[in-house]
Amino acid sequence: MNIVEKYGGTSVADLDKIRAIAQHVKEMKEAGHNVILVASAMGKTTNKLIEMATALGGHTNDREMDSLLSTGEQRTITLLAMAIDALGIPAISLTGYQCGFITSHHHAHARIKDIDITNLQKHLDDGKVVVVAGFQGATEHGEITTLGRGGSDTTAVALAAKLGWDCYIYTDVNGVYTIDPRMYPKAKRLKEITYNEMMQMACLGAGVLETRSVELASKYNVRLFLGKALEKDKSKGTFIMEKTKNLEDMPITGISIKEDYAIMRVNDLPNDGIFLGELFTLIAKLDINLDTISQQLTHDGKVNFSFYCNKKQSDTILKHIDELNSKYPISRLLGFVKLSVVGVGISTHSGIAAKVLSTLNAHNIRYYMITSSEISISLTIEEKDKQKAIEVLGEAFDL
Amino acid sequence: MNIVEKYGGTSVADLDKIRAIAQHVKEMKEAGHNVILVASAMGKTTNKLIEMATALGGHTNDREMDSLLSTGEQRTITLLAMAIDALGIPAISLTGYQCGFITSHHHAHARIKDIDITNLQKHLDDGKVVVVAGFQGATEHGEITTLGRGGSDTTAVALAAKLGWDCYIYTDVNGVYTIDPRMYPKAKRLKEITYNEMMQMACLGAGVLETRSVELASKYNVRLFLGKALEKDKSKGTFIMEKTKNLEDMPITGISIKEDYAIMRVNDLPNDGIFLGELFTLIAKLDINLDTISQQLTHDGKVNFSFYCNKKQSDTILKHIDELNSKYPISRLLGFVKLSVVGVGISTHSGIAAKVLSTLNAHNIRYYMITSSEISISLTIEEKDKQKAIEVLGEAFDL
Repeated sequence: MNIVEKYGGTSVADLDKIRAIAQHVKEMKEAGHNVILVASAMGKTTNKLIEMATALGGHTNDREMDSLLSTGEQRTITLLAMAIDALGIPAISLTGYQCGFITSHHHAHARIKDIDITNLQKHLDDGKVVVVAGFQGATEHGEITTLGRGGSDTTAVALAAKLGWDCYIYTDVNGVYTIDPRMYPKAKRLKEITYNEMMQMACLGAGVLETRSVELASKYNVRLFLGKALEKDKSKGTFIMEKTKNLEDMPITGISIKEDYAIMRVNDLPNDGIFLGELFTLIAKLDINLDTISQQLTHDGKVNFSFYCNKKQSDTILKHIDELNSKYPISRLLGFVKLSVVGVGISTHSGIAAKVLSTLNAHNIRYYMITSSEISISLTIEEKDKQKAIEVLGEAFDL
Repeated sequence: MNIVEKYGGTSVADLDKIRAIAQHVKEMKEAGHNVILVASAMGKTTNKLIEMATALGGHTNDREMDSLLSTGEQRTITLLAMAIDALGIPAISLTGYQCGFITSHHHAHARIKDIDITNLQKHLDDGKVVVVAGFQGATEHGEITTLGRGGSDTTAVALAAKLGWDCYIYTDVNGVYTIDPRMYPKAKRLKEITYNEMMQMACLGAGVLETRSVELASKYNVRLFLGKALEKDKSKGTFIMEKTKNLEDMPITGISIKEDYAIMRVNDLPNDGIFLGELFTLIAKLDINLDTISQQLTHDGKVNFSFYCNKKQSDTILKHIDELNSKYPISRLLGFVKLSVVGVGISTHSGIAAKVLSTLNAHNIRYYMITSSEISISLTIEEKDKQKAIEVLGEAFDL
């Protein structure tokens, strides 16, 4: 097999872990597999570097931050290459730049424009294990960039896509669970999940994998695996793919929670859309993507309007609301979470929405906005009901 | 003025020191000077990285070591650039590669082939303070290289040479002394020293500056200054230049000591040169440059032969001596040092050699091999006499 393996920060936190990965790579090579490693910075390195930069007042200097942070991955990959090489398996490290990751010039959140694999391919042809720095690239002018949140996963998936290889993302969790096990210890590990379900889980808050890398895997049909580093039993982990085998058995794949929700409301607007137009222009200018928007006509022809966003975004909006010079006050309610029931079975199994609502009703859990897509049903509930809702829905759908 | 300032590891060891350098740069810019900084890795960073690599068995992997070690300087320069920028002085960091340092492919001891200053010049033209990573460069193929011992000094001098700027090397010592103050506390600081004297002092063991950077400064006539970081009083430091003003006053500039000397001897060789030819071929193969060689004809037409090298080199030679299958045994004497009296005045002031020898004689200090050059007289003495020799010569020449 041809596998891109990605190791996160906790998996390479010390020299013993690096030695163990080197040993694993040796076994993979001896079994005839081709391996590319993608690695993050060791342990808490990135946080420590950010602390130093902050102390110097430089954390907002994106160009220098990118060059600073990129050293973290560079150290990991050289140490990994040395450790593998010391076991008699030829290995070489490549920084983002050396591996041909050409990105946009947007420091701190660059997009990959292309991967020029000439150099990488030469080393693969020589039979070497190539160890690539995650999270980083460079512009055509040799300026060092980083890819933003989840960047190392993106590096790994992009390489796998470019080469047509499989991509194994190793982390400190044993795959994807139906519900975050910290909230619901009885949660089951999923053997398989579709790209679409995973993206819903990710963008709705499950947090094990950024939407961006799943999106990329989906676009290029990269077979993804998510599991614990150095766990030999691959049944302990989750494959993410176009179509899973267990479509019929399990209408619901899981539940994800997005915390810290705010409901923003404006009541008794005239039905001319003028204020809403101005409000949306402001919100777009603040670079905020609203989550859910709802408006209702009242019996006397006015409009009650509400939208949902996270608390931080609502802070930003309230800080700038004066710019509108509006006579319509915006009120904010805090203390909500968004609960989403996710599964490709939702569109083919009827009655799932009804079962969700009746379960919540039976336990006196109040829900606000409800939205649904082909593969998800989302409800805004009060923070205080979160744990109870997870438990009763987890029981009801056998998650 | 246009100044390249180089800061060594101890001068950038913590964030407070980085802040202080940033403040100093601000004052320099406000006084109308143009500044380029060259920085080493912070404090003990390089040693720590070497330890990690050694623990993984990778310290002999020169290619990976270069990429690993180069991250040390990269961190310093980004932090420095942030700190300067945070004071409102536009600054940018450039890695060796970004600064156009194109080197040979010899990892761990690469030679600078050229500096393509296009990128650097653009930032200078924009009025920025440019902070350059010392010690590193890259091949035409983007492979990261390091310049070996004293590499950051070489970076600074090479930049100054290319741009025609002055070069201030900041370290933790207050300039060049007549004798190492740890051996002779009464030693005087030199206000000025010539390139040639400095090279003699360096290659004969004074250790404050590598010969290579002085050689480069001499070749391009770069005005060098060596002093303590952030010391405002520039009279506390040493200028290194083509010709000093005090040529006439001071025939002797200083004394330098090279420790751990071995004398190797072969006696009663036939006078046909065969054995010596074989021996020198072996020594060249072992990549050893012999220091001093001497042969004497005995009264019965045989040759007594001896040479001097440091203890480590003598170990290497003895380990390989069997390859010669010689019937002439090599004996080794340990416990010597090489003491050198250095000064451009030596060639113009007569009687200096006589004064050195009579001073040593008067204190019963025995000397072995004596060699001399235009600007130095060197003697091999016993380790046990080192301190006494330094003191009596220091007194005699008022050093």
